[in-house]
Amino acid sequence: MSVAELASWNDGSAKSAIIEFVAQVEREVAPEERVAVFDNDGTLWCEKPAYVQLDFLVRRLAEQAAADPSLAGAQPYLAAASGDLAWFGDAVTQHYNGDDSAMKVLARGILSAYAGMTVDEHAEHVTTFFARARHPVLGRPYTECGYAPMIELLRHLEAHGFTTYIASGGGRDFMRPVTTAMYGIPPERVIGSSVGLDFTDGHLRTTATPEFLDDGPVKPVRIWGRTGRRPIFAAGNSNGDIEMLQFTDAGPGPSLSLLVRHDDVAREFDYVAGAEKALGLAPRRGWVVSSIRDDWATVFS
Amino acid sequence: MSVAELASWNDGSAKSAIIEFVAQVEREVAPEERVAVFDNDGTLWCEKPAYVQLDFLVRRLAEQAAADPSLAGAQPYLAAASGDLAWFGDAVTQHYNGDDSAMKVLARGILSAYAGMTVDEHAEHVTTFFARARHPVLGRPYTECGYAPMIELLRHLEAHGFTTYIASGGGRDFMRPVTTAMYGIPPERVIGSSVGLDFTDGHLRTTATPEFLDDGPVKPVRIWGRTGRRPIFAAGNSNGDIEMLQFTDAGPGPSLSLLVRHDDVAREFDYVAGAEKALGLAPRRGWVVSSIRDDWATVFS
Repeated sequence: MSVAELASWNDGSAKSAIIEFVAQVEREVAPEERVAVFDNDGTLWCEKPAYVQLDFLVRRLAEQAAADPSLAGAQPYLAAASGDLAWFGDAVTQHYNGDDSAMKVLARGILSAYAGMTVDEHAEHVTTFFARARHPVLGRPYTECGYAPMIELLRHLEAHGFTTYIASGGGRDFMRPVTTAMYGIPPERVIGSSVGLDFTDGHLRTTATPEFLDDGPVKPVRIWGRTGRRPIFAAGNSNGDIEMLQFTDAGPGPSLSLLVRHDDVAREFDYVAGAEKALGLAPRRGWVVSSIRDDWATVFS
Repeated sequence: MSVAELASWNDGSAKSAIIEFVAQVEREVAPEERVAVFDNDGTLWCEKPAYVQLDFLVRRLAEQAAADPSLAGAQPYLAAASGDLAWFGDAVTQHYNGDDSAMKVLARGILSAYAGMTVDEHAEHVTTFFARARHPVLGRPYTECGYAPMIELLRHLEAHGFTTYIASGGGRDFMRPVTTAMYGIPPERVIGSSVGLDFTDGHLRTTATPEFLDDGPVKPVRIWGRTGRRPIFAAGNSNGDIEMLQFTDAGPGPSLSLLVRHDDVAREFDYVAGAEKALGLAPRRGWVVSSIRDDWATVFS
């Protein structure tokens, strides 16, 4: 490879593993089988201090509360309207601790936030959000919060015959309006969580019924549903990516499963919560761990 | 266009409509929006005297009855083992007449036919079936029962920047092993009905739980789920394709919705059952009807 390739990666075991893997694939794997899947939150872009999609949804809930005062006194609209982001974080924490009461209220609000809208109207809301919103800590537009080394890796794999997909727990139709510009990945290669759609009078409308939560063991199922192939490369960063990485490493030929480790408090964030099990499995399964602090020369471009 | 293009289509209004549409698309539609969707049964290949997939499933049921005599005395195994294909046809007819009893028995058998198998093992069964089975009337392998003019149309659209997909009520994982060789359409561009998959120990296994019946209003939902785009070209032949054709013709730009009419008893089959409503809608919605008898110079290559 030329010197310029993977320039935002520091020399080290992660970069070497990628380069050696790609060279082996070029010798051994037919181009149509070179499927690479990437998680999004925490793998392609920043997921802290909160998921970008949560910001999108909270803004929508606040907008709904402003438009309909009868909503404004109850959760999750109350918290959204008053900017009480801790309420949302607590709902998730309580959910993981076995108390689902706040999460149920939150889920109902989230699911009804866009119900009845056509998919085109929903896409316009997404586009408007991304044109305005900025990351609360980094201070840059969310569309500039993609990780330069990972975007470079997408291009590197594609240059060597890979077809790249996003396989994220985030909303499929939330990601699609920006993935082409941010990552060079068009809508047809974005796999994510979804609500059911309803077809009437020639148009598709968003419903309030969940369809898939594309996380954990659902990821390999949806990847197969979409591609009909087992990936040979997968990148993730959390426990929700474990099955996707296992599906990839259990194939008969060469494969590379990559985990991004968030350990750079100066340039991004430093956390392991939600990734403990994945990081624990990595040495046993031969997964490559890419440390943001050590392996990335640049984080954001 | 050159003289050789669409050579298996007779000159006439259907061929002219296609040529004019493609010329307009080249002037007006960005390449990434040139999405074309094709039904399979009765649109890309022959669906009479019975769906090809029914032959595949009946053979499997007979195989299961032979391997497990405790099954052989009950339906649907009894009918499968004795070659009583009328039982299967009757189950479908009774279902449409409001009596679901035989269909329930049939569905249970079909859904459990491959339950527990990995998706790779299932694909091997499909490949073996296609290597052996022949069309009962045409006497040729099913893989040679694709319609030459429609395959030519796939290539014509692709040559003009379209991305082609199959969107069929048939089984997604039943079609995938042969669509590349038959139609030049790889697995990742095959949308179809599916059962749920279960991920364990690195492998995906077929379950007995239905996931999607990709027919009627489900077709536009699955097309969006897969592509994130509204097609500008759709081809079908039956009432189950109506919503897909409507989704296509309701877009803001140029579109073409095509219906194949089976009216050639000499070279293929002559029937309207299951297509009455679609053919009735065609003139009102401006859909192009392609008569096999009049519009196709060749049916099978």
